[in-house]
Amino acid sequence: MEELKKRILKDAEVGNGDIIRVDMFLNHCMDVELLDRVGKALAKRFKGDRITKVLTVESSGIAVACFTALYLGVPAIYAKKFQTGYIDPEVYTAEVHSFSMEKSYTIRVSKRYLDDDDRVLLVDDILASGQATLGLLEIVSKAGAEVAGVGVAIEKATKDGGSVLRRMGIRVESLEVVSHVEDGRIILAGED
Amino acid sequence: MEELKKRILKDAEVGNGDIIRVDMFLNHCMDVELLDRVGKALAKRFKGDRITKVLTVESSGIAVACFTALYLGVPAIYAKKFQTGYIDPEVYTAEVHSFSMEKSYTIRVSKRYLDDDDRVLLVDDILASGQATLGLLEIVSKAGAEVAGVGVAIEKATKDGGSVLRRMGIRVESLEVVSHVEDGRIILAGED
Repeated sequence: MEELKKRILKDAEVGNGDIIRVDMFLNHCMDVELLDRVGKALAKRFKGDRITKVLTVESSGIAVACFTALYLGVPAIYAKKFQTGYIDPEVYTAEVHSFSMEKSYTIRVSKRYLDDDDRVLLVDDILASGQATLGLLEIVSKAGAEVAGVGVAIEKATKDGGSVLRRMGIRVESLEVVSHVEDGRIILAGED
Repeated sequence: MEELKKRILKDAEVGNGDIIRVDMFLNHCMDVELLDRVGKALAKRFKGDRITKVLTVESSGIAVACFTALYLGVPAIYAKKFQTGYIDPEVYTAEVHSFSMEKSYTIRVSKRYLDDDDRVLLVDDILASGQATLGLLEIVSKAGAEVAGVGVAIEKATKDGGSVLRRMGIRVESLEVVSHVEDGRIILAGED
């Protein structure tokens, strides 16, 4: 996606350990006009694939999931990571390990919002190690629903989430792929 | 907002302690077409008020904030409640007490995304005791920015957040107001 590519090259920053910071336009501070077009582009890739729900994990995936769902004409659900607000006692759960937080946490989706009639698109802002996505897959499987694929704004090819998911036979669509970081500079796939 | 009123009366559920559950369309499982129109309606009320940023708290306010910001043509920022993902070390913070969680937590906004040129609209899905909104006000004040007002989809008049904010001279716009719960039934303002 040309606009996203330009924005990454213009604004994204590289931190310690090759962490790529996109919190100035993709999460925390959100350029909602860009996010709207990101959602539209992801929806276009899965149009006609009989998606019934878009599923993400709070919090950074919510904006992309909302815009993608809007263009697909389906509801967006976010799995809860934190014990706040009301949630049904009847939930599907999965354990997710976070390498950046160095701990595991439980994600939850109410059983009322996913069932075996659903065909689900998993959406997130960034795909890195893919641990949260694997947790969502487990939840979709427990609900007896089908996974149509995974759609993300940015995939980091420096982590193996994308390749693990593809080897599982899952369709993964990334609008942009960060190939690697070279001398503190982000190199996108197709640019190196 | 007629559509929101009908949806509350049709789908919202009343739980113990007069808790009102709207997680089947407003958060957790999100009817994004409704949320898009909620954002449009909130933006309309503050159009021409020179808003430069929309600010909310993760996670349930993010969807409404994104759509409101889109119709105002400004970025949406969410204050971080949880220690996940990257955030600048330089942040504005506020302590927020949660009556439902029975504990306090710290919310954070990077200093890069708010400054004294900003005129900020605070947005949330629900306004009840208003503790999170008071925390956002403190952050906006620390940034030297102005608050244009508060816009929410649903205000619960059974809690005093709305009246406290209005007594502080802050403009509060609620698309629908829950007046009270009577025999397990939700009574909206103007309907009793």
